[in-house]
Amino acid sequence: MKAAVYQGKQRLTVEDLVIPEPGPGEILVKVGYSAICGTDVHAFLYDIAPPGSVMGHEFSGIVQSVGTGVTKWNKGDRIVGGGGNPPPGEEAPLRRQEQYNYRLEGFANTRKRGYAEYTLLNEWEPIVVPENVSDLQACLTEPCAVVVRAVRLSRQRLGDTVVILGAGPIGLLCMQAAKAAGARKVIVSEPSDTRREVASSLGADVVIDPKKGDSVEAMIESTDGVGPHVVYECAAAKSTLHDAFNMVRKQGSVMLVALAWEEIPLLPVDWAAKEVTFNTTFGSEHYDWQVAMHLISTGQVNLDPLMSEADIIEVDDIQKAFEDLCKPSSQVQMVVRF
Amino acid sequence: MKAAVYQGKQRLTVEDLVIPEPGPGEILVKVGYSAICGTDVHAFLYDIAPPGSVMGHEFSGIVQSVGTGVTKWNKGDRIVGGGGNPPPGEEAPLRRQEQYNYRLEGFANTRKRGYAEYTLLNEWEPIVVPENVSDLQACLTEPCAVVVRAVRLSRQRLGDTVVILGAGPIGLLCMQAAKAAGARKVIVSEPSDTRREVASSLGADVVIDPKKGDSVEAMIESTDGVGPHVVYECAAAKSTLHDAFNMVRKQGSVMLVALAWEEIPLLPVDWAAKEVTFNTTFGSEHYDWQVAMHLISTGQVNLDPLMSEADIIEVDDIQKAFEDLCKPSSQVQMVVRF
Amino acid sequence: MKAAVYQGKQRLTVEDLVIPEPGPGEILVKVGYSAICGTDVHAFLYDIAPPGSVMGHEFSGIVQSVGTGVTKWNKGDRIVGGGGNPPPGEEAPLRRQEQYNYRLEGFANTRKRGYAEYTLLNEWEPIVVPENVSDLQACLTEPCAVVVRAVRLSRQRLGDTVVILGAGPIGLLCMQAAKAAGARKVIVSEPSDTRREVASSLGADVVIDPKKGDSVEAMIESTDGVGPHVVYECAAAKSTLHDAFNMVRKQGSVMLVALAWEEIPLLPVDWAAKEVTFNTTFGSEHYDWQVAMHLISTGQVNLDPLMSEADIIEVDDIQKAFEDLCKPSSQVQMVVRF
Amino acid sequence: MKAAVYQGKQRLTVEDLVIPEPGPGEILVKVGYSAICGTDVHAFLYDIAPPGSVMGHEFSGIVQSVGTGVTKWNKGDRIVGGGGNPPPGEEAPLRRQEQYNYRLEGFANTRKRGYAEYTLLNEWEPIVVPENVSDLQACLTEPCAVVVRAVRLSRQRLGDTVVILGAGPIGLLCMQAAKAAGARKVIVSEPSDTRREVASSLGADVVIDPKKGDSVEAMIESTDGVGPHVVYECAAAKSTLHDAFNMVRKQGSVMLVALAWEEIPLLPVDWAAKEVTFNTTFGSEHYDWQVAMHLISTGQVNLDPLMSEADIIEVDDIQKAFEDLCKPSSQVQMVVRF
Repeated sequence: MKAAVYQGKQRLTVEDLVIPEPGPGEILVKVGYSAICGTDVHAFLYDIAPPGSVMGHEFSGIVQSVGTGVTKWNKGDRIVGGGGNPPPGEEAPLRRQEQYNYRLEGFANTRKRGYAEYTLLNEWEPIVVPENVSDLQACLTEPCAVVVRAVRLSRQRLGDTVVILGAGPIGLLCMQAAKAAGARKVIVSEPSDTRREVASSLGADVVIDPKKGDSVEAMIESTDGVGPHVVYECAAAKSTLHDAFNMVRKQGSVMLVALAWEEIPLLPVDWAAKEVTFNTTFGSEHYDWQVAMHLISTGQVNLDPLMSEADIIEVDDIQKAFEDLCKPSSQVQMVVRF
Repeated sequence: MKAAVYQGKQRLTVEDLVIPEPGPGEILVKVGYSAICGTDVHAFLYDIAPPGSVMGHEFSGIVQSVGTGVTKWNKGDRIVGGGGNPPPGEEAPLRRQEQYNYRLEGFANTRKRGYAEYTLLNEWEPIVVPENVSDLQACLTEPCAVVVRAVRLSRQRLGDTVVILGAGPIGLLCMQAAKAAGARKVIVSEPSDTRREVASSLGADVVIDPKKGDSVEAMIESTDGVGPHVVYECAAAKSTLHDAFNMVRKQGSVMLVALAWEEIPLLPVDWAAKEVTFNTTFGSEHYDWQVAMHLISTGQVNLDPLMSEADIIEVDDIQKAFEDLCKPSSQVQMVVRF
Repeated sequence: MKAAVYQGKQRLTVEDLVIPEPGPGEILVKVGYSAICGTDVHAFLYDIAPPGSVMGHEFSGIVQSVGTGVTKWNKGDRIVGGGGNPPPGEEAPLRRQEQYNYRLEGFANTRKRGYAEYTLLNEWEPIVVPENVSDLQACLTEPCAVVVRAVRLSRQRLGDTVVILGAGPIGLLCMQAAKAAGARKVIVSEPSDTRREVASSLGADVVIDPKKGDSVEAMIESTDGVGPHVVYECAAAKSTLHDAFNMVRKQGSVMLVALAWEEIPLLPVDWAAKEVTFNTTFGSEHYDWQVAMHLISTGQVNLDPLMSEADIIEVDDIQKAFEDLCKPSSQVQMVVRF
Repeated sequence: MKAAVYQGKQRLTVEDLVIPEPGPGEILVKVGYSAICGTDVHAFLYDIAPPGSVMGHEFSGIVQSVGTGVTKWNKGDRIVGGGGNPPPGEEAPLRRQEQYNYRLEGFANTRKRGYAEYTLLNEWEPIVVPENVSDLQACLTEPCAVVVRAVRLSRQRLGDTVVILGAGPIGLLCMQAAKAAGARKVIVSEPSDTRREVASSLGADVVIDPKKGDSVEAMIESTDGVGPHVVYECAAAKSTLHDAFNMVRKQGSVMLVALAWEEIPLLPVDWAAKEVTFNTTFGSEHYDWQVAMHLISTGQVNLDPLMSEADIIEVDDIQKAFEDLCKPSSQVQMVVRF
């Protein structure tokens, strides 16, 4: 089977690996689509992924065979490669540890995952894809679960005004999740024309180009002069977190969704007097996936505008795709089709 | 009367001003002690205070005379120069505004305040000093109210483990307020030997010198290996906010008490996965002062070790005191005696 | 002008009153529609309203004339009779008082309000009706603002499962507000067949008849066996609050929306171990009205099924309407047309 | 060994049982003191405990022998019979279940516990008693952990005013925990003279006899006329929960600590407009015990006045003690000595 193996030093090579056999309690999944997550791009860019690993944790597929003792799945079941409820002791490291540094601990193992034609999962790991959700849509359930968690952990309430900084895949999903949570007005800041257009088509009430004029001032004006109740930081650019604090209203909330991997500067004296709350979120848990799948299935989150035909690549082109994604991009979401 | 007038460009001169007359609803206060607040030092250092202004907002004194219509106070009443409950419309700007930038808006007016022999207050502004609190102690009620607010707005709960970064006056007060709120263990990080000794004498369970070894790791070890529930950032140094996020436990809280006036760097990927909460606090309100005065009066906050005889200066020496406080300092709290 | 004047002892008579003149800062409103609120029915049933008062606080209308100094409104403006932002000192009693007993203090004044052809308002009191909202719809903005506040003060988060107890007007509005806030599943319990049908037509995922079988058990089964995240108590029946506590999941929330005016029994030992949170809400504030009008205007709250033509009465029939509403009712919302 | 075996129908008999042998991972504890908990009294009064069971979950003792594989304890270690951190899957039923009815599920098993000369524990169950805590004090760690949890789950903040309803053992402990959490003023309501005196001696700022005058009004007056920030309901009497809601300030909190086993009436219309929060708490977890032991060890919780020599009984007198505790009591805490 074909698999994109990380070689270190920003090199992914497509190799022909033996199709693995599911052990007891495991299932073998034929991967349909694998979305390229910004986290994988970071692991590539900062050369954090261990050589020999096969990344890719946002994928959909079909159960190909099951190991001994597996009762939950049958050959042919349509699944998405995550979202199951881990048995005690099988939780992700962060959920078990009191301290967790994602930069240092997030890419420790070399498990083969979704950038391959076939992959193994534990029986409890995947969740089922409803009939009205396509394989292509399903591969984005994971990032959708991430923004669902962000909104659930935020302090957003029915009718709040909301700002989304950055309209990459996570920003566009977060925008839709914030609307599903009843935002009265959603304002999106994004420098790429293409992405701003997608944001508008998906229901942004106001879109702002931060390259033009003072975007912090523009955000405050767009919210009756008081600033948004909640700002979701989905850009991880040099200045966006400071902007978020500068625009949020007094006693408002900033939720950090996208993670900066390089140092960003803050000047607290500018905004601390507003007595703001700031929260971080990370990954997603079982219930977040259930909500995400519900939002996709009911159309409250529309994934189609995130993925144009041009953004769907073959695994042989994965090195170029990663290189492109390391540059400032107007692309929305790239997906590997198997 | 003598008053320390700010001239701009880091110059304070002591001038002989006319003693003001209290207008209707005003009182004239003979100032006893005026504590030098770090905020005033910032206004001096960054030359933000408008020329002609008389700073000083932490003072105690005695009512000298009252204007027409004043019924609440009589000559001779012992008061502290703040903490009253403002009538509607008289609240501090921050409490009325939805957006507030302390750096740009915090020093806008040129009102004469506490670095003078006499000063005017509105009738509602001061609160009374209980008999068992001395004039010298009373002048620190304002910073005590600031830390009371910080603890009240934090998510600290009975029995939490708490870290205090920085043992200047605010850190030492915050440490005592956190203990009064039932912290099970209070750990203080402070580079100055003198200040660490004061912290110990005031009940810190552990004191750490951040110049020696990895203080983040030391803090985590001191909290059963999991990190503190709450970190109070009272240092405003280059790295202390990032340290706070790095040491706090999963789902813990960081409360920003001291404000950095220069950009500080953060690296969110290191700590965001812990799903932390961060809050800012600013100034204090009426109830915070009531609680502060109660803590001082009952001895739960002990102010004496913060002020040695050497730290009490005459107003004529104020320029030198400000210059000293602009440098890294081991002094704890300086007070002007009138 | 015709007005329904409360005479005491459950008697409303329609009298011919002089049309009032707007004083300085006041406007005269020609009432279009006045909805009959359950609160007015309670005031009638328990004979709490003072004789001589004209009740009715849910109304829409048109500005007929303005008093001196009024700049915000012109003759012909379409307004709803509440929702404005009160100037300091003009807030509702509850917002000014620390203690407030609605039963004893809620009906103290005899101001003439919405059950009359004309009524006076302060300039700041009303808010404007958008073009795409009809006068009939607009008269229900107030109860919609009440449920918006209930959802905002609840701990409901995106994707939560929600139960609504009671599908009278408040329950049907609350159900829609909970859906607008992103509930994954909304389950409604209501004994009236008519009201259950309306609930279904407005998007309830499950409707349950509490007269059949164990409705608490049915609710828990409908939520994957764990109980709902949030229960909105909109029935104020004898057993509904206890039911709410019995069905809510561990660490879930109960929000009290409808108020029982007679004692209701609770048995805490049955449900306290779940460590639940219970909140009460009351009335609404300016921002709640803004959100309510937004939800009505965008169709997220659909008011039409609440009011059939048969439920719109003339003021001459108001006594009978109140008498009917004191009995167990399947009616949804009654409205007086002027 | 002697053990008090419940026979059903409010009968406890002291029987001579065989001393059990610790199995693998178990330890045998020689019980020193076993406190009689109100929960056991309820189980007796309502005849809920299963015949054959030996109740008693508040005890201290000494490790007598250890089973195979036990590494944590040695013969002679001083322990208290709970507070350990359960391994996954061994948590108490409530912590594992989403629904839990204490009345129906709380007394399901017939395990032999603390009203016996010897009892078995799993290795992970007990925690160690510090040197400066006596065996008699240690047996009250469990109820102390219960009130620690109550205060931790409440919304009490530094400097809040607090009311405690009921000064039985739980009320007296809760009062001290609330003080340790920084309450500015603690007011206790209790009909028994003896208990009120103990409350005063332990630091209550105000004690009120609810049999005299309007105690709700008295509480509000004692809190500057606004009502307390937090009310802890530690009485479980017919009217105390309704009183709690009636006295708490607007947006204040009521925490239910003591559980009524018979229906109590509420009249929400009287207090719901204050937009209150109500929380329930149940039992305690590992960290609550750590905090409790810390508070006992540092003297912040003083247990001695709860237990006079007269309240310490022999196990042979246990039937009479339970009968006495079913009646309205002025006793503070009864303890069985082995």
